[in-house]
Amino acid sequence: MERQTGGPEIEQMIALLSRVQGLGPRSARRAALQLIKRKDVLLVPLISAMKNVVDNIEQCRQCGNMDTVNPCSICADERRDKSLVCVVEEVSDLWALERAGVAKAQYHVLGGTLSPIDGRGPEDLNIASLLERVKDGEVKEVLLALNATVEGQSTVHYISDLLKGCDITISRLAHGVPVGGELDYLDDGTLATAITQRKII
Amino acid sequence: MERQTGGPEIEQMIALLSRVQGLGPRSARRAALQLIKRKDVLLVPLISAMKNVVDNIEQCRQCGNMDTVNPCSICADERRDKSLVCVVEEVSDLWALERAGVAKAQYHVLGGTLSPIDGRGPEDLNIASLLERVKDGEVKEVLLALNATVEGQSTVHYISDLLKGCDITISRLAHGVPVGGELDYLDDGTLATAITQRKII
Repeated sequence: MERQTGGPEIEQMIALLSRVQGLGPRSARRAALQLIKRKDVLLVPLISAMKNVVDNIEQCRQCGNMDTVNPCSICADERRDKSLVCVVEEVSDLWALERAGVAKAQYHVLGGTLSPIDGRGPEDLNIASLLERVKDGEVKEVLLALNATVEGQSTVHYISDLLKGCDITISRLAHGVPVGGELDYLDDGTLATAITQRKII
Repeated sequence: MERQTGGPEIEQMIALLSRVQGLGPRSARRAALQLIKRKDVLLVPLISAMKNVVDNIEQCRQCGNMDTVNPCSICADERRDKSLVCVVEEVSDLWALERAGVAKAQYHVLGGTLSPIDGRGPEDLNIASLLERVKDGEVKEVLLALNATVEGQSTVHYISDLLKGCDITISRLAHGVPVGGELDYLDDGTLATAITQRKII
């Protein structure tokens, strides 16, 4: 246990900061000192920004996205293609796809993947609400944009099995060499997939 | 500019988080999502811990440390050796020395180093208050525990020149091979210093 310096208030703040992703115990300590040193320009604004988020952000009742409006601005956006639903694991994946800026689609956030080891079954994910959305009729295609991990892919299989009865297209993301990637640095699985799923040019 | 997802409240929080040491734009985004996801167990407690710090922490009027009491708990600690003052650059250095747990001394935080390039002169550091403390008479030794950087060491020279008139011992930290360090990984400057300042055993 490290010695307390600066009193329990600072220690409490450091302890919580160290649980933030990307910060460890040491960097949390450094961050805390920086925040205190720049109290008026950084710490106080950050507190009010965080409070704003706590007070205003809620989960979209349709897709599970986080937004200040409900349904979220993506679900409410009339210019979006309502016939394509991208199913993602987490809100961060939704944001990543939005940043890429390709899919003018709607989303559905599962809230994780199936994981028997961690005791996460279908009832712990937003799968029932996905089936409801699909049965509503407007959806023509479900793109299962889950991570290319074992758990992500088994969730893809599970959901595509569930959706087989419905009259819709089910798709998944393409696997292969990342754009800008060098073959020498890629794992064998990716290379094998890139070869077996090669495209005729 | 990245697309806004999740509304201006979240973007504002991410923008401020990305200015925290140790977090970049991408990790700030991930941290923000984690904080929102774990709102009740992480974000809300963090806000209140930060508010606690803002409301209660002040700079010690004697040494420049951060604490909830003023003078700080180190300055107020009667068991400490008041004859030895460790001069450090920042509060983080004070904490590092306290963690090492060797010096049962008092401290004096300069608030930085002299830096002509950045326009930081003696009047921008807590040097005048250091001279006052020394002239008060209780201090017998000033340990200039500044970083072993060019700026840290020129500040050491500057302050030791100022203190030469006073009837006190002036010391600096030992330079050499870090404990646990391997010679092969050390820079030439450290190795040269370790040799020229070798100790007879």
